[in-house]
Amino acid sequence: MTQTTVSMTGRLDPRSGWEARSCPIARAVEVIGTRTAFLLMREAFYGTTRFDDFALRVGVSEPVAAARLKELVTAGMLERVPYQDPGQRRRLEYRLTPMGADFFPVLAALMRWGDRWLGPAGLEMQHRDCGAGIGTGTWCDAGHPVTAGDTELVARPGEPAAG
Amino acid sequence: MTQTTVSMTGRLDPRSGWEARSCPIARAVEVIGTRTAFLLMREAFYGTTRFDDFALRVGVSEPVAAARLKELVTAGMLERVPYQDPGQRRRLEYRLTPMGADFFPVLAALMRWGDRWLGPAGLEMQHRDCGAGIGTGTWCDAGHPVTAGDTELVARPGEPAAG
Repeated sequence: MTQTTVSMTGRLDPRSGWEARSCPIARAVEVIGTRTAFLLMREAFYGTTRFDDFALRVGVSEPVAAARLKELVTAGMLERVPYQDPGQRRRLEYRLTPMGADFFPVLAALMRWGDRWLGPAGLEMQHRDCGAGIGTGTWCDAGHPVTAGDTELVARPGEPAAG
Repeated sequence: MTQTTVSMTGRLDPRSGWEARSCPIARAVEVIGTRTAFLLMREAFYGTTRFDDFALRVGVSEPVAAARLKELVTAGMLERVPYQDPGQRRRLEYRLTPMGADFFPVLAALMRWGDRWLGPAGLEMQHRDCGAGIGTGTWCDAGHPVTAGDTELVARPGEPAAG
């Protein structure tokens, strides 16, 4: 049977011997842990910038959209930037920060997984230059495709055996 | 300025002209839209299989763990498999299904993003064969690295212009 889990050796074996105290997945879902937050980020990548459009396209009430957008701004995922339409007063729109823009691999992976396992969507994302689909597998920094079974969790030097 | 958003042309331009009705990201976060569900899936990839260990390692009460695990089983991400320790009665443990195992790229992307933007963790994931870090950028199916600005959202043939 193909291994589907991450390997652990040394100080991280066995799993019962350490606590995931500073787990980056836990920290990430503290920042973006609601359905609405994921969909607001989707809209930001789809080019939505204005408050009314976020609420409408995500399908939530204005108070909910306002609360979640404020959290994303506080977290540093979005920033508010002034804009002014001719003859209108100055308003603020929402833009992806570098931290928000770097969240793209997470949404691309969710999109591919949802499309594969929860029924195909009417849309797909393609590489604009070559037309290929966006695969969102996982690669190591040396360019090898990896699944969970190909990976190993290691404690960084000097760190106690806790993530 | 580098483009940080997904391009849209044809029937998908402008964004205000269509609704994301069958969005795979929305479907995905319906299945796994709570912080606890993400952390339970993390534990499944870390090799945790038993109910008590899930509750302990995720740091939630047993009723919460039971409710979220049940949802993940119903969704098809985990399955319950019998096991029996010597001298003990038969129990059920939780295993990743193929659908659950295929969720790995999402968690790997969240882990890398959290590590990069929310403070480094004491742990990192590496490719076991070559020792390189797990990059979790996004690649197209032809092997080109892509950011959101390199992608285009397209309507599939025969579909109404709605995701």
